[in-house]
Formats: sequence, C-alpha cells, structure tokens
Amino acid sequence: MNTHAYQQLESIFEKIAYLEHLHAMSAWDEAVIMPSGGGKARAKAMATLDGVIHETLTDAKVGELIEQAKEERLDDPWQQANLQWMKKRYLNATCLPDDLVKALSETTLHSEQAWRTLRAENNWEDFAPLLEKTLALTKESAQCRADVFKKSPYDVLLDDFIPGINQQTIDPIFSQLKNTLPNLIETIIEEQKKRPLIQPEGPFPIEQQKQLGLELMQAIGFDFNHGRLDVSHHPFCSGDPEDVRLTTRYSEKEFVTAAMGTCHETGHARYEQGLPKQWLRQPVGRANSMATHESQSLLIEMQACRSPEFMNFLSPLVKRIFAEQEAFNRDNLHHLYTTVKRDLIRVDADEVTYPLHVILRYEIEKELIEGGLKVADLPNAWNEKMEHYFEHNTDGNYKDGVMQDVHWPAGLFGYFPAYTLGSLTAAQLFNSAKKANPQIPTQLAQGNFSALFDWLGKNVHSKASSVNYDQLMQEACGESLNVDYFLNHVKARYL
Amino acid sequence: MNTHAYQQLESIFEKIAYLEHLHAMSAWDEAVIMPSGGGKARAKAMATLDGVIHETLTDAKVGELIEQAKEERLDDPWQQANLQWMKKRYLNATCLPDDLVKALSETTLHSEQAWRTLRAENNWEDFAPLLEKTLALTKESAQCRADVFKKSPYDVLLDDFIPGINQQTIDPIFSQLKNTLPNLIETIIEEQKKRPLIQPEGPFPIEQQKQLGLELMQAIGFDFNHGRLDVSHHPFCSGDPEDVRLTTRYSEKEFVTAAMGTCHETGHARYEQGLPKQWLRQPVGRANSMATHESQSLLIEMQACRSPEFMNFLSPLVKRIFAEQEAFNRDNLHHLYTTVKRDLIRVDADEVTYPLHVILRYEIEKELIEGGLKVADLPNAWNEKMEHYFEHNTDGNYKDGVMQDVHWPAGLFGYFPAYTLGSLTAAQLFNSAKKANPQIPTQLAQGNFSALFDWLGKNVHSKASSVNYDQLMQEACGESLNVDYFLNHVKARYL
Repeated sequence: MNTHAYQQLESIFEKIAYLEHLHAMSAWDEAVIMPSGGGKARAKAMATLDGVIHETLTDAKVGELIEQAKEERLDDPWQQANLQWMKKRYLNATCLPDDLVKALSETTLHSEQAWRTLRAENNWEDFAPLLEKTLALTKESAQCRADVFKKSPYDVLLDDFIPGINQQTIDPIFSQLKNTLPNLIETIIEEQKKRPLIQPEGPFPIEQQKQLGLELMQAIGFDFNHGRLDVSHHPFCSGDPEDVRLTTRYSEKEFVTAAMGTCHETGHARYEQGLPKQWLRQPVGRANSMATHESQSLLIEMQACRSPEFMNFLSPLVKRIFAEQEAFNRDNLHHLYTTVKRDLIRVDADEVTYPLHVILRYEIEKELIEGGLKVADLPNAWNEKMEHYFEHNTDGNYKDGVMQDVHWPAGLFGYFPAYTLGSLTAAQLFNSAKKANPQIPTQLAQGNFSALFDWLGKNVHSKASSVNYDQLMQEACGESLNVDYFLNHVKARYL
Repeated sequence: MNTHAYQQLESIFEKIAYLEHLHAMSAWDEAVIMPSGGGKARAKAMATLDGVIHETLTDAKVGELIEQAKEERLDDPWQQANLQWMKKRYLNATCLPDDLVKALSETTLHSEQAWRTLRAENNWEDFAPLLEKTLALTKESAQCRADVFKKSPYDVLLDDFIPGINQQTIDPIFSQLKNTLPNLIETIIEEQKKRPLIQPEGPFPIEQQKQLGLELMQAIGFDFNHGRLDVSHHPFCSGDPEDVRLTTRYSEKEFVTAAMGTCHETGHARYEQGLPKQWLRQPVGRANSMATHESQSLLIEMQACRSPEFMNFLSPLVKRIFAEQEAFNRDNLHHLYTTVKRDLIRVDADEVTYPLHVILRYEIEKELIEGGLKVADLPNAWNEKMEHYFEHNTDGNYKDGVMQDVHWPAGLFGYFPAYTLGSLTAAQLFNSAKKANPQIPTQLAQGNFSALFDWLGKNVHSKASSVNYDQLMQEACGESLNVDYFLNHVKARYL
C-alpha cells in the first residue's frame, strides 16, 4: 500500500519534534541555569524558534499532504491516530495569523519573566498591564480557534491540555467536589487535631536532602542515563523523553516538601521515559494529556509515596540519611505526610484541599475568557472566592493571592483543571492497578515499584496518544472518570 | 535613502543569529549538563537546527536581496561592512552542493565522537580512516570555495578563522618564530633551573578553587548578570554575548591550572560582553576573528594575570582562600606561573613553547590540504617534527601525538594559526595599551582591570567586525602585526 504522503508527514513532524526538543531544553536552561541578564536574548531566540516551528507546521504543503494521506490506507491504528493529531495541530496552527503567534510567544515569555520579580515584590500594579496583554492575546487566539473547531473559546483552551474534555464534562465533576469537600475538610481538620504529631528537628542539609531525593528516584526506577535532577525556583519536569529534566527545591528547615516533590516529578519523568520508543518523535507518541501526565505524578506521590505502606520503606531511609529522630518513626511520618490544612498557596496544598484551589481558578478563568471579568477586578474576585473556599483573606497580598501562579502570566489559561482531573484519575488508576495486582501495596512497603509500573506501563505509558483520555480510562479501568474513587480514597486515608 | 533590501537582510540575519543562540546553548548543555543517554536525540536536534539555519541562509531570496542592497546607499560604514559579511556568508554557504554540506556535517560529527574514545585507546588504526574521510571532504569543500573566492584551498580555510589572513602573511611570521624560539627556550630552561621553586601542598578543595575562580572573574570585571561559570571536561567559553557561558575544570591536586584557565576564559568572555549592543545580532557585530578572540583571552591570562605585578594581588588572595603557605609568596607564585618546559601536549604548553606546537601543526596542515601528505604518513611526519622542535619522540604514542587535538577530527583545519597569532596580537595590544596608559601595571597589582578594559573596549571590543583583523591592529597599534612585541615580552619576562 502506498503511504507516500503519510511518510512525508512523518518526516515533517519529526523535524518539528527535534526543534521542540531544543525549545524544551532552552526553557529548562532558562528556569534552572540562565543568569537573568540573558532573558532578553533568550526570549527573542525562543520566539524565533517558535516562528520556525510555526512556519514548518503551517506550510501549505502540510495541508496538501494531510488531504492526500486521508486517501492512503494506513493499516496501523497508530498511524491513523497520528494523522488525526497532525491534522489537529495543523488546523490549530493555520487558523492563527503569524503576527498573533509571534506576539503571543513574545508577550507570554516577557510577562512570565517579569512575574518572577514582580511577584516577589508583591507588585500588582506593574504586573496587571502585562497580564492584560497576555490575556487579550490569549482570548484573540482562542476565539480564532473556537470558530474553526466549533467550540467555545474556553473549551478550546481546555482541549489544549486534555483533548476531548470540555466544561460540560468538568462542571458536574467540580460540582460534586464543591458539594463534598468543604465539610470533609472541616471533619478531617478536627480529627487531625486529636492525633499526635512530632515535628522533625532541623536543619536538614541540602546535600543530604539531595541524597534522599536521588535514592527515592532510584527506588521509583528513574533512568539516570536519560535524565537528571536539578534545582529550580518552581519544581517541574520537562526536557525530552530520552533526556528528562526534573527539578526540585530545598529548604534547610524541612525535608518533607522536597522529598515528596521529587517523588511527584519522578512520576512525570517515568511517564516520559516509558513512552513507546518507536513513536517518540511523532504527535501520537506524546503523553496522552496533561491530566494523564498529572495522574502519573500524583499516583506516585499521593497514592504510592504518601501511603501508610510506603512509610515502612521511607522511615528507615530517612533515619539513615539524617540520623535517628522519633519524628521519623513510621506513624509520625505518615501523619506528617497527610496533614490537611486550608492554605493560601496552591503548590503547597495537600490533596484534599487542592481541588478547591483549582475550582477557584477554573471559575475565575471561565469569567476571564468567556465572561466579563477584567484583570483590574481580579484581586477582588480572588479574595472573595478565597474567603468562601478557604476562610482566608488575601486583600493586598497579591503574591500569595492572584499572583502566586506562573500559569496566567505564561499564557496557560485552561491548564488548572488538569491538576484536579489528574488527581481523580490517579485515584481511579491506582484502584484498578491494585485490583489487577494485589501485591502492589506490599511491594511499596519495600520501596519496590515494579508491579505498579508493569501495570502503568501496559495501561498508560505505552499507549501514549494512540487513544484519547476517556478511551484510556475506559480501557484501563473499565469506566470513564468517576469522582467516587478519589472521594473514597480521601475518606479511607483521612477519616 | 531607501535601504529596504538591506533592512530585510538584517531581519534574516537576526533570525539566523537567534537560531545560532539556541545552537550555542544546546552545545553548551551537551558539554556541561546532558546525561550521555541524551546524546542521540541531541545530535538529531542539532542537525535539524543546522539544516534550518542553512536553508534560511541559502534561500535564493537572500542572494537577490544582496544584489538589490548593493544598489542602495548605505551611509553607515557598519551597514556597508555588514553587507559584505552577509555576502561572504551567503557565498560560502551556497557554493557547496547540499550533499557535500550534509556529508561534511555528518562525517565530522561522527569522527569527532569516535575520536573521544579512540584517542583514549591510542587507537590510530581505527581513527585513520575516519580522519581520511573528514580530510577528503574538507579538501573537496575548500576546493569549491577556492574557485569562488580565487584563493588557494588552505588560504580559504585560514580565512574562515581570521578573515583576510593567508599563508603569505603567516609564513614570514612563523619563520621568525622558528628561527628565534628554540634557542630562547633552551636558554630559559637553563636559567629557570637556577631559580628556587616551592610546590604548593594540596589538596585544594574544589569549592575553594571555585571561590578563587569567581573572585578572579569578579576582579577582571566579568558581568555575572550576563554569564556564568561551570565545569566541563575541556574548558571553553561560548554562549551568547548577553549570556556568556564559560567553563573550567578542577583537580584537587593543584589550583594553578584552573585559576589561570578561568582568567583565560574570562578574557574571551569580556570580549563577548563588550561587543557593541546595537549590532549583536548581525554578522558585523561578531568578534573580529578567532585570532582577535584568542588575543583577548591571552592578553588577560598571559600578559596580565601571569605578570609579576598581578602576583601582588594574587598572592594574598590565594593565601586567604587556601590558608598560608610559603609557596604562595609573590615571587614563588610568579615562578609557578612562568615555568617553561618542552611538553608533548599543546593545551598544557606555556606561552614560550606554544608557538612551536602551532607551527608543527601549520606545516603539517598545509601539506595535508595542498601538498601530497597522506593520512597514513601523518604519525611519521608528526614524530619527525616533534623530535626537531621538542626533542620528544611520539613514535607509537598517538594519543599524545597526532591524535591529541579535537580540531582535525572535527574538520577544523586552518584553525591552529589563530592561537599563535592571538598570542602575538596580545603582546602587541598590551604594549600599546600600556603606552596609552602607563597606570595599567600599577592597577593590575591591585587587581584593578579598569584602565586596561577602557583601552580594550575602545580599541578592540567595540569595533567587532566593522574592520578586518589587519585594520584593527593598525588602528589600535599604529602598525600591522609585528612579532617583535611578543619576542620582547618573552625576553623581558623569562630572561
């Protein structure tokens, strides 16, 4: 069977993938390595690269080849799915004017860079006009694409991160969480007041914390020949499936955050390292969705590494690295790792309160993109919801309020729901994995992740984007996303 | 005046410059950061980027715009020079068949990678055929360009690194060095046997050496907001003028090499950081030549930082960082930093013997490119010259002989003379600088480089490539390159 046009498309998308490799490494460098004075040139360089990628993708020849390839018989369902992804990327890219793409890339990079300084200064006044510009360009781009894909603008943005998901799917899920979590949180907090909790005594030297992180990564099965651990202001996992760059941050005062942060990012990393080698440079070979990605990090962090079973492995490890303390005993560690509190900061939130942070942002984003909410009114809107969901006031405290996240200045509107969908997905996948192999908790108690990753490899990693998010859930769990698994997990662990 | 075509060219070359920024950062990452398993994807990504840069540069539109721009009146001599550079780059890129460009890029990458292993194994047998292939393609490419530029093939290669320089300029200079240095070296070595020399007692912890390096960089005026210091197997300076990445390497056994290596790379770095901001992304805004670049590193390392004056600053600094030792006294440090010996290895050579290493390579290269010397006869040719210039035998010792340098496997024939021209240039520029401001040595004794960089900024850095190498020398020193300054410097310092 002649698949000449399709083969040409694979070459073009391979070229794009390698240019994106340079983009990812350059962004990693910017966050981890680059001195701040290099920012201006870097922004220009990355915008130039974005431009080249955009030109390559939007070349009229790509459109013609896609039309021709539709007539070719592709026997492999991965090829068929790949062609669909190509078409979607092509449409998304061609419907935007070149000037808009360039402006969006430069503006978001600039406002993200500025955010780092302005947040530290609690400087809303100088930040607001930058965010306004980013928002205006995002709305313009979402509107262009909304016309093409026959979706609402915010649904277009949601679909960027979780293909196939829209407000109609999310609204009832978030409703159920809104109706359940506040009371649950109240009860858990009251319950937790009764249990003993010994705070570990620091300081915890960075070098030792790094050692702990590396040993945890080793246990989780991170491949150090294809990746590394570094430090950045905000932990993340990026790079290339064959060169995964994950970061963490340390405070000498406590080791709990960095250790679990490293487990979290290693969950992301193992997903990347587990993607099918044959398809690494094609759209179909990428991670299934950001919700799926987040499910892998949260499954490792929340379901596995904060489980009471895992404390059997963690307790002696922590004692060996930092020397003996009563606070490092198994039960106390478990208490430390499962403390629930209403906090101002999303990235510091526990898994029970986290969804409310996301819902707050989801509700605001919808209003910013599709409703009448103006950037000038953002701090008030934030404060109102913060009081409602968390009984906290952020009036005037922009840096711990509306300026706390990188997403909006970086132009990542529509991203937040992926965190909570990822959390729900993690609970549901973990449940299915344990059903398939009841040895998993016993293995985790020994720091052994092999049975868990056998299941994840087969049911998640190896599938990449050959199926969409909902299909992946149905094939892995026998049903679509269901909030009950998460709520049951919370009740089982915290009540 | 309408300069429409010229302005379009500036946009195109700005795009190329930003893509080259990503190339430089990616190569830096490969040498400093990347886990080895990432190598395959990185090689593909960088080859893809090379392809994009080549396509952009060789677009027929560039040729047309150059023709049109010639008819436009460019009032600014920088614009005129810039157009000349554009034309030269375009001709160089377009006169080679695509297949040859691709073969050359793949072959050099492969032979450079293989060299790393084969050198360590002293494996000439497997290395020779790779070098033969690289040489054959280099000769083919040099011949194509020789026809276009009406120069001999080796002159074309020399011109790649020092525009305007050819064998006719180099031959008499190297003759003078060949006639003078061997006796001078003999005398210096005999003289130095008489002077006392105390070896410092190690170990010298890496952290302290790093601190020393950073303080030296600070003194030399490195802008840490626009660059950083890291570690790599082979020290280098690369990156972007607004984000200069320099590297060094440490051995706990001694600190002398790393400290002066850092000064050397900081000389390169300050040149980059001193290039005119307005022209950073244009061909005319680049460093003047590789000889000029090397002159800046050698001026800082050899002329300034190994001077007896600078030891007044270095001695208390070294004592503060490593604790008191008699070996750290001013005079002993000076002896340590000016020891002359006949060594096998170019990169470890002192400034007096270094030119002979280069002349040996220059004479061999000429024969390889334009004469009848075959790769099979290289080890013998090397050994003969090594015995003649250094009284050393490298028979069978390929790794410290003909296989010691990365340049030939990497296809960098014609590069070596830039090292020695840089060394001569450094001596001549330093002489002129001191004549213009006799305070310079006094300032160096206090670790103050401001007067020196005032002069270098005005006479070298700010000129970038607006003039060629010879013009730069004439404007800065009132005469062309003159070997006497270097020979006088050697006599003054070592006799």
